[in-house]
Amino acid sequence: MNTAIICIGTELLRGFLNTNNAYLGAELEKIGCAPMLELSVDDDEKHIENAFRYALSHADCVIATGGLGPTFDDITREAVASVLGKQLVYNDTVMQCILAYCTERSIAYTDNSKRMASILDTATVLHNTHGTAPGQLLDISYNNAKKIIVLLPGPPFEMKPMFEKHVAPYLRSHCSTIIVKNVVLKTAGMPESYVEARIKPIIDVERKLEGNDLRFAILANPEGVQVKILAQGNDEVLLDERVHKIRQELCDVLGDAVFGEGDDTLEGVVGAMLTKKKKTIAIAESCTGGLISNRITNVPGSSRYFLGGIVAYSNDAKIKYLGVNASLITQHGAVSGEVATAMAQGIRAKSGATLGLAVTGIAGPTGNTDEGPKPLGLVYIALADEKKTILHKHVFKGDRATIKMRTATTALDIVRRN
Amino acid sequence: MNTAIICIGTELLRGFLNTNNAYLGAELEKIGCAPMLELSVDDDEKHIENAFRYALSHADCVIATGGLGPTFDDITREAVASVLGKQLVYNDTVMQCILAYCTERSIAYTDNSKRMASILDTATVLHNTHGTAPGQLLDISYNNAKKIIVLLPGPPFEMKPMFEKHVAPYLRSHCSTIIVKNVVLKTAGMPESYVEARIKPIIDVERKLEGNDLRFAILANPEGVQVKILAQGNDEVLLDERVHKIRQELCDVLGDAVFGEGDDTLEGVVGAMLTKKKKTIAIAESCTGGLISNRITNVPGSSRYFLGGIVAYSNDAKIKYLGVNASLITQHGAVSGEVATAMAQGIRAKSGATLGLAVTGIAGPTGNTDEGPKPLGLVYIALADEKKTILHKHVFKGDRATIKMRTATTALDIVRRN
Repeated sequence: MNTAIICIGTELLRGFLNTNNAYLGAELEKIGCAPMLELSVDDDEKHIENAFRYALSHADCVIATGGLGPTFDDITREAVASVLGKQLVYNDTVMQCILAYCTERSIAYTDNSKRMASILDTATVLHNTHGTAPGQLLDISYNNAKKIIVLLPGPPFEMKPMFEKHVAPYLRSHCSTIIVKNVVLKTAGMPESYVEARIKPIIDVERKLEGNDLRFAILANPEGVQVKILAQGNDEVLLDERVHKIRQELCDVLGDAVFGEGDDTLEGVVGAMLTKKKKTIAIAESCTGGLISNRITNVPGSSRYFLGGIVAYSNDAKIKYLGVNASLITQHGAVSGEVATAMAQGIRAKSGATLGLAVTGIAGPTGNTDEGPKPLGLVYIALADEKKTILHKHVFKGDRATIKMRTATTALDIVRRN
Repeated sequence: MNTAIICIGTELLRGFLNTNNAYLGAELEKIGCAPMLELSVDDDEKHIENAFRYALSHADCVIATGGLGPTFDDITREAVASVLGKQLVYNDTVMQCILAYCTERSIAYTDNSKRMASILDTATVLHNTHGTAPGQLLDISYNNAKKIIVLLPGPPFEMKPMFEKHVAPYLRSHCSTIIVKNVVLKTAGMPESYVEARIKPIIDVERKLEGNDLRFAILANPEGVQVKILAQGNDEVLLDERVHKIRQELCDVLGDAVFGEGDDTLEGVVGAMLTKKKKTIAIAESCTGGLISNRITNVPGSSRYFLGGIVAYSNDAKIKYLGVNASLITQHGAVSGEVATAMAQGIRAKSGATLGLAVTGIAGPTGNTDEGPKPLGLVYIALADEKKTILHKHVFKGDRATIKMRTATTALDIVRRN
């Protein structure tokens, strides 16, 4: 089944990140309906109509988000009615739900709210548990072909639960002959080109197999490199065997670069290791400014092993909070292996944690003039335990946010590998 | 001029956030070529061709990103050649640039690299200063209409400088009869519905004016609510006067909720205020886990006023690093006004900063069971100066990341307002 996504909202064409498309892409892939196309259109009825006509002529299933609210620029219902030649029918049961939702939460009800109770003729109403505008699902014939059309609200907090509860099960039952297996291997500490070179022989062998229904993808971002395998077939046992074999081959060539699978995060894996080994950590950050602590504490229950973080951005703070010797900074500069080492040992001593992690570097936008000729992106990462302090030096490329994120990923990976 | 964006890459349909579309949308709006359409397509030659045909039939200018690299799935060049019926011509000058770039950076050169030197007949080559694949710009006739086609590389670090240097000036010169004025007012501490209610009378008056070429938009995210005004016209003096008048009216009704304009950030504005008043700040974070420090240190030069941050996630850390009295935690819980106040006063005393900012709360995913019946999203924010400590209590909605971001925004806004 070919799937297309339509995202409606002028803001999506004015600089806003489209998180709905990212969410739907990932979820649809998991159930074997990975989209081949996405369109974002502004709140213009003709543009929305054109987008639906184009999507319907290329895909069997069209999932749209946005434009279902009560205001004058919410016109998805009308545009779809026009494309399909269908009537919009006022549904009083839906209206009562909307009223109940508003009353319960003291949300003002206006005459405009009635527009949200206009349902396309023959559509199934998808109840909105997190807002007012209901979704709609249509199973229709369009130009003599069977099509599924799903209309979802734009706000992610309303859209996601509705997709999970109503749309995913429906689509799964419509792709029921196909079994889909997904494996995502997550790596850190290995550049994308190395990952690609190592897995290429395995991919090449698979590509030569007849009737191949296996796909590979390599995705790189500042949080690491992911290798995705997507397999489709009719025989679950065979599929499982095959995916298991390839997964094992990939793990063998990638070695300890693989830190996890699926929804694993590096900070989650590091947290689980620390918990298991009954170790604790404390973090001293300069150039990352709190980002590593922020990631560590994104893991629920991290207070068990995270004994605290100190953001020592200035030289004074490094001296005052971490006990770094002022002469070290004068002699080597704040961005130096010597200072990183002293910071790691300092935070470890101060916190009483088993491990002390420290980073200092130049995140930009320009090189720090106090640091002389040191390049933008230069970062020192130090990890101290009771016996020794390990020191790593890196020069990361990218803008300020990317350098910060790459530094945080590398620092967490150093903890994992030790 | 109608503009469409095409983003090429299977990953964009598999859960990856499309930052190129967000960047281009914002930049194109500024120069009066705001896109009306965006398409994301996977690395399939037919799908790419269809996307170009659709975009060219609806827009005067089509800007594409991605698929210009050296690997087998980089097929944008071939797809566009097929749609336009043009030849791809090997350009040796381009090849020499690619070779020089690779040699200088010790990047391996393969036979595949030659594909990047294939230029569409009559296209202008856009030099890539941050990578190997050059961009291409075409000024052509398609179905008897004049069209501009721009092909840009997919990696944001290559695409953005190329757009800025080559594409933006070219488009500006092609929209020269239209003058565009943009104003973005940024607010914090006022809910979206309040902002909307306050500015509605002003918008309603403007909407009734004849020949209106003014657009308004309200955009809300966890970093605050933005009001955007976009005005187009031919007479710069009149346009300036009109925008200035409306800007003033909006500022009057929104009052001190407005913290800045354009590219201003709340952390940047707070930083500028602290610098001006010669004040310093130190931050103690619990539920935000380093996010506030991370945002504060996103501002270059923040070391002038940011004396340090402490992430005291556990009760022990609150006691040890911030001097919070253990009995306060036992009596009121870690998430309480009493503890927030003690944390703010503690970090202030410890750092010697003029201001001590502290947050403690329940970011989720579930309410902290140690805290009894306290609701998810409950947050206390305290700001201590030499005379007093101000305390704010909030209950934020959303998932863990949203609650953290809303808390950080509110905390920074409290600093701004005091």
